[in-house]
Amino acid sequence: MDFLNNYLIYLIPVFGLIGILVMAIKAAWVTKQNAGDGDMATLAGYIADGAMAFLRAEWKILGGFVAVAGILLAWSGTTVATSSPVIAISFVIGAFLSAFAGYLGMRIATKANVRTTQAARTSLAQALKVSFTGGTVMGLGVAGLAIIGLGSLFIVFYQVYVVKVTGSTVNGEAMAKALDVLAGFSLGAESIALFARVGGGIYTKAADVGADLVGKVEAGIPEDDVRNPATIADNVGDNVGDVAGMGADLFGSYVATMLATMVLGREIVSHDNFGGIAPVLLPMVIAGLGLIFSIVGAAMVKIKSETDSVQNALNIGNWASIVLTAIATYFVVQWMLPSGEFHMVRDEVNGVVKATVIPFTKNGVFGAIVVGLVVGTLMSIITEYYTAMGKRPVLSIIRQSSTGHATNIIGGLSVGMESTVLPILVLASGIYGSYYFAGLYGVAIAAAGMMATTAMQLAIDAFGPIADNAGGIAEMSRLPEEVRHRTDNLDAVGNTTAATGKGFAIASAALTSLALFAAFVGVAGIEHIDIYKADVLAGLFVGGMIPFIFSALCISAVGRAAMAMVEEVRRQFREIPGIMEYKAKPEYEKCVAISTKASIREMVAPGLIALITPVIIGFAFGPEVLGGLLAGVTVSGVLMGIFQSNAGGAWDNAKKSFEKGCDINGEIFYKKSEPHKASVTGDTVGDPFKDTSGPSMNILIKLMSIVSLVIAPHLNSHQTATAARVQKEMNKQPMSIHMVVKAEKSV
Amino acid sequence: MDFLNNYLIYLIPVFGLIGILVMAIKAAWVTKQNAGDGDMATLAGYIADGAMAFLRAEWKILGGFVAVAGILLAWSGTTVATSSPVIAISFVIGAFLSAFAGYLGMRIATKANVRTTQAARTSLAQALKVSFTGGTVMGLGVAGLAIIGLGSLFIVFYQVYVVKVTGSTVNGEAMAKALDVLAGFSLGAESIALFARVGGGIYTKAADVGADLVGKVEAGIPEDDVRNPATIADNVGDNVGDVAGMGADLFGSYVATMLATMVLGREIVSHDNFGGIAPVLLPMVIAGLGLIFSIVGAAMVKIKSETDSVQNALNIGNWASIVLTAIATYFVVQWMLPSGEFHMVRDEVNGVVKATVIPFTKNGVFGAIVVGLVVGTLMSIITEYYTAMGKRPVLSIIRQSSTGHATNIIGGLSVGMESTVLPILVLASGIYGSYYFAGLYGVAIAAAGMMATTAMQLAIDAFGPIADNAGGIAEMSRLPEEVRHRTDNLDAVGNTTAATGKGFAIASAALTSLALFAAFVGVAGIEHIDIYKADVLAGLFVGGMIPFIFSALCISAVGRAAMAMVEEVRRQFREIPGIMEYKAKPEYEKCVAISTKASIREMVAPGLIALITPVIIGFAFGPEVLGGLLAGVTVSGVLMGIFQSNAGGAWDNAKKSFEKGCDINGEIFYKKSEPHKASVTGDTVGDPFKDTSGPSMNILIKLMSIVSLVIAPHLNSHQTATAARVQKEMNKQPMSIHMVVKAEKSV
Repeated sequence: MDFLNNYLIYLIPVFGLIGILVMAIKAAWVTKQNAGDGDMATLAGYIADGAMAFLRAEWKILGGFVAVAGILLAWSGTTVATSSPVIAISFVIGAFLSAFAGYLGMRIATKANVRTTQAARTSLAQALKVSFTGGTVMGLGVAGLAIIGLGSLFIVFYQVYVVKVTGSTVNGEAMAKALDVLAGFSLGAESIALFARVGGGIYTKAADVGADLVGKVEAGIPEDDVRNPATIADNVGDNVGDVAGMGADLFGSYVATMLATMVLGREIVSHDNFGGIAPVLLPMVIAGLGLIFSIVGAAMVKIKSETDSVQNALNIGNWASIVLTAIATYFVVQWMLPSGEFHMVRDEVNGVVKATVIPFTKNGVFGAIVVGLVVGTLMSIITEYYTAMGKRPVLSIIRQSSTGHATNIIGGLSVGMESTVLPILVLASGIYGSYYFAGLYGVAIAAAGMMATTAMQLAIDAFGPIADNAGGIAEMSRLPEEVRHRTDNLDAVGNTTAATGKGFAIASAALTSLALFAAFVGVAGIEHIDIYKADVLAGLFVGGMIPFIFSALCISAVGRAAMAMVEEVRRQFREIPGIMEYKAKPEYEKCVAISTKASIREMVAPGLIALITPVIIGFAFGPEVLGGLLAGVTVSGVLMGIFQSNAGGAWDNAKKSFEKGCDINGEIFYKKSEPHKASVTGDTVGDPFKDTSGPSMNILIKLMSIVSLVIAPHLNSHQTATAARVQKEMNKQPMSIHMVVKAEKSV
Repeated sequence: MDFLNNYLIYLIPVFGLIGILVMAIKAAWVTKQNAGDGDMATLAGYIADGAMAFLRAEWKILGGFVAVAGILLAWSGTTVATSSPVIAISFVIGAFLSAFAGYLGMRIATKANVRTTQAARTSLAQALKVSFTGGTVMGLGVAGLAIIGLGSLFIVFYQVYVVKVTGSTVNGEAMAKALDVLAGFSLGAESIALFARVGGGIYTKAADVGADLVGKVEAGIPEDDVRNPATIADNVGDNVGDVAGMGADLFGSYVATMLATMVLGREIVSHDNFGGIAPVLLPMVIAGLGLIFSIVGAAMVKIKSETDSVQNALNIGNWASIVLTAIATYFVVQWMLPSGEFHMVRDEVNGVVKATVIPFTKNGVFGAIVVGLVVGTLMSIITEYYTAMGKRPVLSIIRQSSTGHATNIIGGLSVGMESTVLPILVLASGIYGSYYFAGLYGVAIAAAGMMATTAMQLAIDAFGPIADNAGGIAEMSRLPEEVRHRTDNLDAVGNTTAATGKGFAIASAALTSLALFAAFVGVAGIEHIDIYKADVLAGLFVGGMIPFIFSALCISAVGRAAMAMVEEVRRQFREIPGIMEYKAKPEYEKCVAISTKASIREMVAPGLIALITPVIIGFAFGPEVLGGLLAGVTVSGVLMGIFQSNAGGAWDNAKKSFEKGCDINGEIFYKKSEPHKASVTGDTVGDPFKDTSGPSMNILIKLMSIVSLVIAPHLNSHQTATAARVQKEMNKQPMSIHMVVKAEKSV
């Protein structure tokens, strides 16, 4: 096992380097594809410029935030022994790498889009190859940077805090300090992810809703029509929201999952001296394996003819990477973890011996990983059912569109609410099962198993918006029907993968948050989070409310920005003569500016709520109430995330169903029919649900848990309401507090 | 204090009898008012018949349910020592009285409606007098029956289980048994309340949405037009939903609050022998005082001229009853509870002495009651702000109506979500504060304080639908403009009181549920509900999901039933010539039948979810996981209740604002404008939100807590996941379970 301690730790960043190398090769390949000509190149240039303009504006704000937060962290790092000002450095590195991962993805996406359009002029197979390779670059970049960053920092902190101080003991305070400082990396990554996801989500939907409301509904021109002043902003939005935002989101999840598992791994090590450093390294090794097998899986995604199924090609690649990773993980677990049964025993606390004996075996750990994979798969399947065309939920919304806008909305809301049932049962079983196999470490490693093939998941996710953009460019450039037909084929698959990707993302966020939650409890040194206590219960209520206000801020921001967009588009149609006859060019840049400004302004409030609430609650009421708050945020956030994402997805596909015609009570309805108009209303309501507030829930719950984990060592005083009452009593009767006081009766 | 033990207990039902007596006098007064003539009498007859038809259909189903559930309860009562088959009897009585209270309210409401119309032909003052007296009958009936029922049963059980068995000791097992059997009364009441609320809610909104979609939107005829075939069903709905449903709901809350406080009062008694039976009797005495002062307050509701403010008159009566009750409560608390400080001390458990010393004084108890009154008041004020015309939230929806249906919906959803923030903060502070003053008993007695003036609250709540019906009858009978003007005045006030009543109801339900939750924990004999345990956390997730599926079932039921209604109305317009020219009478009874059938059928599934889930979870996973489930249901249910009720109320008033004209960016829009049409969509979506699923959340959370409380004595085995893992371990290593096992390392 010396090999593990001495060498394996240095191998981890190598996995990341391999990923980045392959990424560079693929990026070079995409860049040298034909970028088209004339209008195509011009329009793609507008999109790329708009996307960069947004990123620059966002970075300006985030730079200030990172500086301020970094200084605060450095200062707070000096106040307790188990932390260090160095946490600020890992915070800044995490923030930078997260932003950089988003940038890389967006750069390649804004190149791959127009090249996909060009490729679609020749064949579907080539168009898939270009768009999916673009997605792969994004996936490998995110995973590679995460592993290099986390792995390298861990090597440094392990050397500085553990090896130098204690020789090479991996348990105890030294290791706790190394991991606490490392948590700054995750905090940095997740903070940027939140702003990128919320900002990008507001941007893309303000543009989308605004473009649709005036273009499709009022002016009667198709989506992505070059005459619509908001169309460039709409296409920019796909890149800043679905690509850069999603990339930063998964970067954050990926890092947070590994970190939480490492913290819990350390607890196993220090309680039982189980397996040396192996439980700490395991999540990073699994991630590394997942990255390598994502490269293998991605290479298997290809089609030969125009009639081959794109969805099947993606599924084959996806399953290959998951199955191969699972098999490899089995052998790695067998090799890394010791044989025999080990027992997690809760220590003696406050003079009370807790005799809970929990067996802990390497097969148990592998079992928990399998639970994670099963949960992720089931969540994707359920999400697809609730949002796919032709299935009961979407059909019910179509039927309810026949009686108007209101019943369409009622139908979508009820589908969204209903769609929480199965995912929650799966998740609850997953929590129960992974805990049964390997305790809280099991819950964390299950999340790590789910997240292992993040590179492949992200390749599939990012392929969607690239194909969407390619279709937009084809439409705007008025290319032949067959080109648009090919990009539509890719886009339709992209819509399905977007929905299943969201199911996967929410499941991983939930398990990650629970892992972080468990890590927080360990680091804060509390024994219970007892909701029978009034103040913990109050914390649970407040926590449950946060996803509601967060969602309200996100969707009202989209509503406001979309209205500004509508007014601008109406103004241009009114004041610039000749737009409708293709004689005058709309002022695209004005719409881009509206989305950019609105999204940057509106992302601040929700972001600050997520960051500051745990700090206030933690310091004012102590770690147990903060634990209640986190539980409330997680449960309510998962529910609101599933509800909103699925309602939005179902509305979207109900609307899309009208393109081929919908049979309602024997009558066929097409586009422009009254039921179709009702379905457009649902789709528009669903837009901010599924692309702004819904997916932001993932980051919200993770970020609040990470903030709590980072401040946990600072939360010493246990100020519960019970404690406050006891304190009040102690002031009066200082002698008798530890005895059972029999009060005098004066009756 | 002997007076307390020996006589006060017999005085409690007397309060109830006074209430019923006053009710009878007021009911006789309403009945002898002029019931109008011609069309008015005919239409009112249709409404009364339709309402009775619904009640009969509902009772047929509920009769079967009560029989089955009663047998199950009787059987289960034989299985544990702390219960008795007699629980089935109190269950049946509770169910009967709850249904009877709803019946009484509906009888008087269907008399008062047409008499209010007739009175409105003379003056506003008289119209208010008739409609408000109708409401008062309802309020006094509900409160009176509840106090008589609960008070009398308690006397019987106290005699049978406590006095006969132990002499007159009020603590210990005997009293626990008496209260356990009494819990059956609350279970019966709340079960009926759930079905009445859900069934009534589906009925009223199916009719309302159906009538509006075809009548207002397609045929362009006003609301309550006699030509609309669904108009009678719509008016019946006001009675079965807003009157009978609401009455059963508050009957259930009122009883549950008293019961939970009594159970927690017994715990104080048995832990500290504090105050004899006083803490157990106190909640019923407070309720009795509240009933008397509700009579006083109701007598103060009157106006003199046409220009007097109806809202002010209601406010004066409401405040008078609250303030008088609070003052009387202060003296009663001083008189009933002993002087000095007493200390709640958690007993020795598992060999561990828990030295938590909590002071407990009579001033603390009064402080907790004041907290309850403040919470109730603040909740009403906040709810009014979020749903009132002319305030920021409703104005924002109006503005967003100018860009179409979709932005109106986005606006309303975001207002609803945002509106959870302040109520949750108030509620969390209320929990913290009332606990600080008097521990868990404080939380319960705070709820009892809030609910004390239920009779007055309900009088105000029931006045709304009576006035609404009166307006409907005036419109249908085509009475002169000035009559409709007077009923509109009353109806507008009724809309405000409906909104504030909902805020009050959700706050009381939340506190009641927490009190029941605390009572459940005590009766189940568990020490913690630790969400750090994986299975308790899984329970929290599943619990949080239940309000979502419950809401989905409710609103999709409304959607389906409304579509059936739309198709029927369209058919009648098509197939019955002359309806539009007032030459042919529509077939009202067909629409009444559709609503009746749909609501009875659709209320079953949500009802069973609420009843069965706690039983399954409790027996399969033990009381601690069930506690996690209850916490999840309560937090998520309160949030979803506030969200849906306020979104619905805000949409409603945004639509109503167009009647007087809305200024959007300097342009004034009226009815039939495009923004108004968008606002009608929002109102229609909001209908099931605010009148079906939203208010059902109250009963859902209370009912699940009561079911848990009733089954608590039966839940012995503590099957947590941790226990399961320990069990698995014990099978292998039977000798070492209570020792810290150091595992061999084979590495």
